[in-house]
Amino acid sequence: MEELRTVALRLSYDGSRYHGWQVQKTEPTVGETLEEALTELCGERIHVVGCGRTDAGVHARTYCASFRTRSRIPADRLPLAVNTLLPPDIAVSGAVDAEPDFNAILSCEKKEYTYLICNTRIPDPFLRDRAWFYPKPLREDVMAEAAKAFEGTHDFRAVRSVGTETKTTVRTVYWCRAARDGGMVRVSVCADGFLYNMVRAITGTLVYASEGKISPGEIPALLESGDRCLAGPTAPPQGLYLTRLWYPGAVGKMMNDGLE
Amino acid sequence: MEELRTVALRLSYDGSRYHGWQVQKTEPTVGETLEEALTELCGERIHVVGCGRTDAGVHARTYCASFRTRSRIPADRLPLAVNTLLPPDIAVSGAVDAEPDFNAILSCEKKEYTYLICNTRIPDPFLRDRAWFYPKPLREDVMAEAAKAFEGTHDFRAVRSVGTETKTTVRTVYWCRAARDGGMVRVSVCADGFLYNMVRAITGTLVYASEGKISPGEIPALLESGDRCLAGPTAPPQGLYLTRLWYPGAVGKMMNDGLE
Repeated sequence: MEELRTVALRLSYDGSRYHGWQVQKTEPTVGETLEEALTELCGERIHVVGCGRTDAGVHARTYCASFRTRSRIPADRLPLAVNTLLPPDIAVSGAVDAEPDFNAILSCEKKEYTYLICNTRIPDPFLRDRAWFYPKPLREDVMAEAAKAFEGTHDFRAVRSVGTETKTTVRTVYWCRAARDGGMVRVSVCADGFLYNMVRAITGTLVYASEGKISPGEIPALLESGDRCLAGPTAPPQGLYLTRLWYPGAVGKMMNDGLE
Repeated sequence: MEELRTVALRLSYDGSRYHGWQVQKTEPTVGETLEEALTELCGERIHVVGCGRTDAGVHARTYCASFRTRSRIPADRLPLAVNTLLPPDIAVSGAVDAEPDFNAILSCEKKEYTYLICNTRIPDPFLRDRAWFYPKPLREDVMAEAAKAFEGTHDFRAVRSVGTETKTTVRTVYWCRAARDGGMVRVSVCADGFLYNMVRAITGTLVYASEGKISPGEIPALLESGDRCLAGPTAPPQGLYLTRLWYPGAVGKMMNDGLE
């Protein structure tokens, strides 16, 4: 019998049609769809581990999934082979043999999410499932200042939704930025880990700041309070993208291949 | 009773969900959806005239529709008002009172279509309904040379599909260009009018040229022959966008407002 190997995949998906990543019984998910394609390709039941749960409607420009298999299909042939078995809203763009104990979620060092806000008077039909349409003019300068206040190691309880258990609510945010590019306001957050809905709650809080409902100077006290009610509302899912992942070794190299 | 006025609208739509523009009985169309929204807004049965038929799956970055109404709603209030009655894949971005005899199709002076080819090894899930995925490397230099040969006044019978009657198959192409922008190859064609599937057949022929199945120097003879079988295949609909329209007077100004 062939030996078990561990494979890491890089993929991207448009999450509009899916109920998130996590395999569940009732609704189609990205993880389940990928498992089915890999099971068919490898000729054995495959279980995938994803780098994180994404909610219904959330997208991934880049995502990492790992699995163990006895199949001998070379890693460099995997992307094209598995893409023929995937629907067109999911695409595998890289694969590499990983260390035996590699695990897409436990081995992940840090992640970056990007949130897109379409800040124009008239909605763009091409962005309806891909950004938060917010027609009231946003003050990106105030948002950028408020974003800075989320950087560093803090307890982020005030900007999470309940629903997922976690040992600690302390995380380190390496950067939290907001900037305008024409009609689009982009929020990007890089951290060693994220609480449930954390980027969407931060984004809602930045919009709150733009509207003068909270001042950037009040963010430290908001974090200190741990009170979710003092932060802004959770921004809708369709604006959220997983955009970058960091891993050690060969997986890290593969995940960032072609990105600057 | 109020007098009839003629209104011109500028809109954009993602055509993925629609069976083209033209009102028909069986399947949802963009024109029908717009008519229903305007009928509700104006409180009387509205009939719209579109600037052209687009096929199922074809998009419009900009589109012009005209209608006549006795409603007194000011033109500048129309976009926001009608958008509240439209699904999110259609958006009205401008409206203006036009000359009484204005007609979105008959008054149109010229149009530009853009065709997008996603020319990467791995498909992009976010472009699945928005570009033609063509993984074999394209030679944009050869395509640009072949494109040039379509410019001018010619009989374009060789690059149309049958299905729509027309008095003459002679059209004037003001420009026909192909260029690469990273993984995207963009074809743009501006003409005083288009035959059925003309841009998609030209695009298929440019891809043919890239593959060496026809040389740019053979395009004049292809046009001369009028033989559809000598041209390349009709490129699929999801890569095609109506991108610019020219009209005289106030409508022309409104249609190109904000475009460079």
